[in-house]
Amino acid sequence: MNSATRLEQQIAFIVEIDRLKTVLRQNYLADGSRRENTAEHSWHVSLMAMILSEHAAAPVDSARVLELLLVHDLVEIDAGDTFAYDSIGEQTKAAREQAAAERIFGLLPAAQAERLRAAWDEYEASETPEARFALSLDRLMPMIHNSLTEGRAWQANGVTADKVRHRAESIAQGAPALGALALELINSAVDAGFLASSPSAQ
Amino acid sequence: MNSATRLEQQIAFIVEIDRLKTVLRQNYLADGSRRENTAEHSWHVSLMAMILSEHAAAPVDSARVLELLLVHDLVEIDAGDTFAYDSIGEQTKAAREQAAAERIFGLLPAAQAERLRAAWDEYEASETPEARFALSLDRLMPMIHNSLTEGRAWQANGVTADKVRHRAESIAQGAPALGALALELINSAVDAGFLASSPSAQ
Repeated sequence: MNSATRLEQQIAFIVEIDRLKTVLRQNYLADGSRRENTAEHSWHVSLMAMILSEHAAAPVDSARVLELLLVHDLVEIDAGDTFAYDSIGEQTKAAREQAAAERIFGLLPAAQAERLRAAWDEYEASETPEARFALSLDRLMPMIHNSLTEGRAWQANGVTADKVRHRAESIAQGAPALGALALELINSAVDAGFLASSPSAQ
Repeated sequence: MNSATRLEQQIAFIVEIDRLKTVLRQNYLADGSRRENTAEHSWHVSLMAMILSEHAAAPVDSARVLELLLVHDLVEIDAGDTFAYDSIGEQTKAAREQAAAERIFGLLPAAQAERLRAAWDEYEASETPEARFALSLDRLMPMIHNSLTEGRAWQANGVTADKVRHRAESIAQGAPALGALALELINSAVDAGFLASSPSAQ
């Protein structure tokens, strides 16, 4: 393969991933003006990692955390964003995302495709300190956004505190101080009346 | 300062930078559906750096390139996006961005504020291999978007090929192969009739 072809493959991938800007998440921006897209979320959570790495449960390679977070949601270009509390979507999510990873990373030259695929696999497996910390940030961010918008995404989707608390456990595993913050946010939201404490309380 | 206060400062910064998602650039998404915002652009150009680092003019610390790109446009929260070819806005840009950097980075604990400020200063100075490569990507990306949208942002702003070629020179300095690609894109756009070759040709 000559170098022009290699660069063409790289540019084709870069153009393709522009589509992540059109994938909408359930969460709203902090100002409530509109729903967030997955590309801008990926930037936000990456910069968040630069700021909060001291809170990781174990020492992390900060550069690796950035790589995991920059690619962690690329599969949503094909698979869409599966809302955290969508139990039906969750059943098909893995298969949809595996197919998406094959296609999207496959646009790159082989060695780079493998490298990005490995980063996504590492994030998904959530076994390394870097992946666990990255997951903590990805799960904390929507709680912050919900806190700032009076639980808008939680309410629109009938999410209750018991389910959010369950997700806070994985935040604590990757970053104890952030897990504690998550619980504070949840408790405040319940006290303020914009997060129902349980399905029966709705 | 106790650790709670430190985390509160960090979260305040993370919430504040959500506003970058509402800063619009002149460029359109690849599908032409809407203008791009600066947060999603920052993600795109960061991931682009992961893919294209082999093309840098000098060996680069890839992790540092990511840090520079994740923070390079944060000042636009206060200063707005100054279009690349806005010669009037350019006159006041430096002062507006310096004030923005003081305020926005100043939300962080002191050592982190200095670290992010140093990254932004390094990017702005464009003297290190990392900063020059990052600048190349930041300048190439809008040319790719314009190529995909028949020069929509160029035409909306009366931009001509002589000015775009001038910007392509700094792309070549940071990444020769990408500078060559930029010239190809410019020439193709002129040939296709969606980039005027000079002011008199408009």
